[in-house]
Amino acid sequence: MSTRQFGARVQRNEDARLITGRGRFVDDLPLDGVLHGAFARSAVARGRITHLDTTAARALPGVHRVYTHADLGELDVTMPLLIPHPCIGHPRTQYPLAHEDVYHVGQAIAFVVADDRYIAEDAARLIEIDYDILPVEVDPAKAALDGAPLVHEDVPNNIAAHLVQVSGDPDAAFAAADHVTRIQVRVDRSTAAPMECLSTAARWDAVSGELTVWDGTQAPIGLRGALSSLFDLDEDKVRVVAPDVGGGFGPKIVFPYSNEILVPFAAKDLRRPVKWVEDRSENFVHMTHERTQIHDIELAATSDGVVLGLRDTFLHDTGSFIPYGIAVAQVASTQIAGPYRIPAIHVTFDCVYTPTVPVTPYRGCGRPQANFAIERAMDQLAAELGIDRFEIRRRNFITPDEFPYTRPDLVFADGLPVTLDSGRYDDALAALEKALDLDAIRAEQEQARAEGRMLGLGLSFYVEGTGLGPYEGAKIRLHPITGKAYVNTGLTAQGQGHETAWAQIVADQIGVRPEDVIVVEGDTGVFDWGVATFASRAAVVSGNAVHIAAVSARARIAQAAANMLEADPDDIELADGRAFVRGTTSRGVTLAEVATMSNPLRYAFNKAAQTATQFAPTARSTGKPLPDGERPGIEVSEYYSPPHATWAYGVHAALVEVDPVTCDIDVKRYVCVHDCGNMINPMIVEGQVAGGVAQGMGGAFYEKLEYDENGVLRNASFMDFLVPYATEVPHIEMIHLETPSPLNPLGIKGVGEAGTIPVGQVIASAVEDALSPLGTPPVRQVPLSPSAIHDLLRQARVNV
Amino acid sequence: MSTRQFGARVQRNEDARLITGRGRFVDDLPLDGVLHGAFARSAVARGRITHLDTTAARALPGVHRVYTHADLGELDVTMPLLIPHPCIGHPRTQYPLAHEDVYHVGQAIAFVVADDRYIAEDAARLIEIDYDILPVEVDPAKAALDGAPLVHEDVPNNIAAHLVQVSGDPDAAFAAADHVTRIQVRVDRSTAAPMECLSTAARWDAVSGELTVWDGTQAPIGLRGALSSLFDLDEDKVRVVAPDVGGGFGPKIVFPYSNEILVPFAAKDLRRPVKWVEDRSENFVHMTHERTQIHDIELAATSDGVVLGLRDTFLHDTGSFIPYGIAVAQVASTQIAGPYRIPAIHVTFDCVYTPTVPVTPYRGCGRPQANFAIERAMDQLAAELGIDRFEIRRRNFITPDEFPYTRPDLVFADGLPVTLDSGRYDDALAALEKALDLDAIRAEQEQARAEGRMLGLGLSFYVEGTGLGPYEGAKIRLHPITGKAYVNTGLTAQGQGHETAWAQIVADQIGVRPEDVIVVEGDTGVFDWGVATFASRAAVVSGNAVHIAAVSARARIAQAAANMLEADPDDIELADGRAFVRGTTSRGVTLAEVATMSNPLRYAFNKAAQTATQFAPTARSTGKPLPDGERPGIEVSEYYSPPHATWAYGVHAALVEVDPVTCDIDVKRYVCVHDCGNMINPMIVEGQVAGGVAQGMGGAFYEKLEYDENGVLRNASFMDFLVPYATEVPHIEMIHLETPSPLNPLGIKGVGEAGTIPVGQVIASAVEDALSPLGTPPVRQVPLSPSAIHDLLRQARVNV
Repeated sequence: MSTRQFGARVQRNEDARLITGRGRFVDDLPLDGVLHGAFARSAVARGRITHLDTTAARALPGVHRVYTHADLGELDVTMPLLIPHPCIGHPRTQYPLAHEDVYHVGQAIAFVVADDRYIAEDAARLIEIDYDILPVEVDPAKAALDGAPLVHEDVPNNIAAHLVQVSGDPDAAFAAADHVTRIQVRVDRSTAAPMECLSTAARWDAVSGELTVWDGTQAPIGLRGALSSLFDLDEDKVRVVAPDVGGGFGPKIVFPYSNEILVPFAAKDLRRPVKWVEDRSENFVHMTHERTQIHDIELAATSDGVVLGLRDTFLHDTGSFIPYGIAVAQVASTQIAGPYRIPAIHVTFDCVYTPTVPVTPYRGCGRPQANFAIERAMDQLAAELGIDRFEIRRRNFITPDEFPYTRPDLVFADGLPVTLDSGRYDDALAALEKALDLDAIRAEQEQARAEGRMLGLGLSFYVEGTGLGPYEGAKIRLHPITGKAYVNTGLTAQGQGHETAWAQIVADQIGVRPEDVIVVEGDTGVFDWGVATFASRAAVVSGNAVHIAAVSARARIAQAAANMLEADPDDIELADGRAFVRGTTSRGVTLAEVATMSNPLRYAFNKAAQTATQFAPTARSTGKPLPDGERPGIEVSEYYSPPHATWAYGVHAALVEVDPVTCDIDVKRYVCVHDCGNMINPMIVEGQVAGGVAQGMGGAFYEKLEYDENGVLRNASFMDFLVPYATEVPHIEMIHLETPSPLNPLGIKGVGEAGTIPVGQVIASAVEDALSPLGTPPVRQVPLSPSAIHDLLRQARVNV
Repeated sequence: MSTRQFGARVQRNEDARLITGRGRFVDDLPLDGVLHGAFARSAVARGRITHLDTTAARALPGVHRVYTHADLGELDVTMPLLIPHPCIGHPRTQYPLAHEDVYHVGQAIAFVVADDRYIAEDAARLIEIDYDILPVEVDPAKAALDGAPLVHEDVPNNIAAHLVQVSGDPDAAFAAADHVTRIQVRVDRSTAAPMECLSTAARWDAVSGELTVWDGTQAPIGLRGALSSLFDLDEDKVRVVAPDVGGGFGPKIVFPYSNEILVPFAAKDLRRPVKWVEDRSENFVHMTHERTQIHDIELAATSDGVVLGLRDTFLHDTGSFIPYGIAVAQVASTQIAGPYRIPAIHVTFDCVYTPTVPVTPYRGCGRPQANFAIERAMDQLAAELGIDRFEIRRRNFITPDEFPYTRPDLVFADGLPVTLDSGRYDDALAALEKALDLDAIRAEQEQARAEGRMLGLGLSFYVEGTGLGPYEGAKIRLHPITGKAYVNTGLTAQGQGHETAWAQIVADQIGVRPEDVIVVEGDTGVFDWGVATFASRAAVVSGNAVHIAAVSARARIAQAAANMLEADPDDIELADGRAFVRGTTSRGVTLAEVATMSNPLRYAFNKAAQTATQFAPTARSTGKPLPDGERPGIEVSEYYSPPHATWAYGVHAALVEVDPVTCDIDVKRYVCVHDCGNMINPMIVEGQVAGGVAQGMGGAFYEKLEYDENGVLRNASFMDFLVPYATEVPHIEMIHLETPSPLNPLGIKGVGEAGTIPVGQVIASAVEDALSPLGTPPVRQVPLSPSAIHDLLRQARVNV
């Protein structure tokens, strides 16, 4: 038998292409005769356009068309609220192009199409726009106060949505508590900063009435649905292709963005292909942001540190629109209790409009904030009760025998109560402690302190609901001639390695090498029953769909081979690209032969023999070539729909040294223990975790989108907005636990976002520990830039 | 309930597009940066190239590449024998480009790719080719004689294949006969002359390794299979699209032709799209021909005219190669006994190589020749026994109670014995007699003769095995928002009206208007399990697959609607684009709503409400959004595989007047009685029959490809090769019989080729009848050009 591929460190099928520069992104598409677009964007946060003149822009040679909202006809509608929820009292979504009112700097006002991008940009600058500038308040806490300037005039206190969730009896819990700890924490606004910014190209075929859109999206099927309905075209007349995509991280889920409407619209209008690729400056003020939340969290505990209840009230900055509804806030609110038993929870949030770039999920999606809140609070509680930070967590863990563990009435994004499916939290913590060698670390820390060096240890335990439904599907087809398997799903990959992971799953079932499994995704013309790549759901939902399809393909191959070999299908083994009778390797056929013979047409030409196989003998020998209800060839489609989310978890720790002079933080060690159930490919898992930690490092140390009092983003470039380079990311020690999920056949859980979630708290906790001898106040927000450290030291009246 | 669409004269969905010039043929494709090809072709029939110099061609500005066989690498192989058969002793197929030897005028020797067609053609003419010219014999009868020049040196007597088939005991039948009649008949070579000649365009995507080929083919799936194996590409990496195709008629089934290899090859080699469209001159010497057969047929009969046995020995001219094997000859041999009981049959044929364009099936495929042979013989037998031509046929018909009627050991193209499934031959003849009013015609004829006018009545009865397997499939998908149904099959249409016929079948099941059923075919990227459009099989095989799929779609819609309406699926009716509970039209939902709600994602944006439906409520209300084994949406694929051929039939008659001075023939009446089982759309059936008759008129009157003694085609243009115009085709009186086929759910039989089959005999029979008072010899060949009539008159020593 072949070696099992599931669980192996299989080299990635996509790497050869991507590493050698043969990736194909939207900007690489060779669209002959393509025109180029550029947007004119609002220069003010909240304003009313008093004068909009495109005359000069239209007059520029090489300009084909300048569109304002008035030109969009039926498309001049606000975009759909993607995820409605009854708690959204005042849903507001954007127009493709602004009407009189603008709501954030960077909002699209006009779209120019020209012979090249240079002309388009020049023309966009020639558009005259005058505004009445309206007052703004960019801080969500102030924006929610009475009298604050309103983003949308008819939305009181800028409150878009308000939700209260109660699980258990929090009042009783707080009444019974020996101790209550309260803190307020804040996480700041960031951006996903993908390598590739947004991108759209479109071609309209006037003859066939077909619209093809290439889009750097995480959700081609969703975008196809949106375009199909917005353009009043049948689904089959709209094809959306996500070619290689240079990072997604959430903001590339369908919004739809102005470009996703305008580029196809212009292509249809002008009967020419049109392309637009966002530049980095635009990306900062156009692609959605995430993160700003302000949590007021309280824990009610016994004197032993057992948490009886949790109250969390938070503000969520949703920016100027709320296209995703309460997604981010809802996720934060449902993950606020972390891995802890906490039987009574009261969580409430307000989503607050601010005149800034709209907020939608970004890797972690509310979890980094929730994790920061609960874990900061746990640290505080530990400190107040004089209990070790590790120990207090251990005392509150849900134990393995308590799974499935439900938090009644805390409703997750799938509409179902939070139900954690499995976990060994205590084991994970123990593994972390062992890896860290806590005694040695404490000794090192004392030694350092004696030398005046500020060494600190931080940790964070997180859980993550992953693998949301409703479903994904997979199609597998075995090819004649080569015997290779083609796999299609409704997803798209932005670096996650689907081409390898799915190949491993299929390879195990049908006995081929992973490199002989070709994965094609991200094309609604190939497969279009599915959702999208987000919410750490691909491996769980698509992976299991691929598995179920592979099992089905295996059964069909075995049956076909059994017919050919005159054997019992139960006796057929598949390995090394062949099907053979168990116990013998000589009585076998290749999968290529199986694929060929399973189609009664047998249209595959045999080049060696230079003949095509005639179908007639089949008819003669078996009667009808294809009996009623049977299908030709080896081709199967199957679907997987999870019963509810599956919960991954992990615990990270860092040993840091803070330089009180430069305020620099040196991460000396970074240890991850994580458990995403059974791993398809540990190498890919490690890549995901490491990438997540790196992105988390950005949030912990550097990344803060800074709006000024006029609502202008001050650091809208990589000159001013810092992201970690490889040099800033420490070596990450990884420890895998594999506690299978009982919810799906492969026993897997999602891991895409995991690494990002705990990093803010890990660093905050470590810095707090490092600086504690100096009497600095607790760390209550990230990022911890040098100036933030400086502030902490200053507050402690340390002479810096 | 909606009106039943099956059987109605529904206006064709495709007509608006095609009639207003919005058809899209290969030459219409807007392939930017496309290069153009031209072939250098052999000027001699049989020769050996002594000198081939492409230097001057390559040097011409604008030329990108000139290919000869030596440049083709792995593709420099002979093309597959598409339909092997053990009787083919000497299968010979062509190279994409000739090696040293050339085998017919027009054989491709080199392929030029240049900036435009003009340059390519100029360059092709600059290629220097010298030949040693070898002796030829283009007449198949002489070519089969000892000592005749050989087309392929190692094929004795030029005999490619020899088959003997015996059904019953012919020797005993002939021994027992009162009377034996013997005749020799000949049908000449013709060409299908489609409006659009052959055409291929190709684009190679070097990044994805995908080859897209647009080809005016009847068999995109077959061509995809050929290209996939020839180019060593996975099937999923080759997409073949047959856009609108301007007539097929058989020669556009996959061969593959040189262009179908060279155009993709050059596109891949040059990394540029390449296009080639055959011009009419090339079409005459490149696209395959059909028809030349010489039959020696004998009938053994009782004195009452009951035929006891049949012997037929015929030569089939296969041209220079035999890519389709014995297809044409086999069809002729199995249909030689027509509608007659004839219990003993001995049929044998030789397929003879001649240094001419290869022969493959052309509308009728051997049947016109077989029909000409048996029906001429029946006329002769009637004359010799003094029995009326109608009466002698009636005496030999298989009667309705004899079906299914098998001719043992006469093996049809599906590998199964000829088994006629149903028919009312006597009713058909009676219907013809009634329509003609034979007494009146006889009176008119006598009157005319008295006036010196030569009036004659001819008739021909034919049967046609149609609807060959192995199978076809159909996919139906119901679209959200519009509720329209998309139908995909593996076929392609060249004017047959599939977009309407399939729509009618689907409309009946799911209760929508035919115009709301969108049929997309001819694209392996859309649906690629199937065979092709040929052999009058589309309606039977695909039509029934569409029906089965529509029944399946109906069941899914009813179930989904029942869930929505909280009703029993058995109580759901579908009509007018809605599903409702029987007995009420108010309790209903639109099919668009059914389509939307049957996908648990419900990704369809509701533009009116400007929201997307959330999936969460589904999960909440029903548990898993997609239960195990269920599929999202309304999408079904089903297949139909016929048990064996189904036999259509008909009888045509014509009243003609021959002008013995001008030798012109005036067709005064033309009556068709035909029975293709249940008709999907009588208007389309009539179009098919009328078109077939028109094409048959060409064969009867005009069309004869005339090779000179050097193997040069003398009439390779529409100046010299005449096809009937609308002015030459008489009004056709049509009478429909509908005897359902018991073999398939819709009870249908094929009709695509029917009209063509009997026309030669009808005209020959009528002319013979018209001229009989003059003592002309029997008519033994078609076409009956004026000079052929002149010959007949001359042989009768009529002073002309």
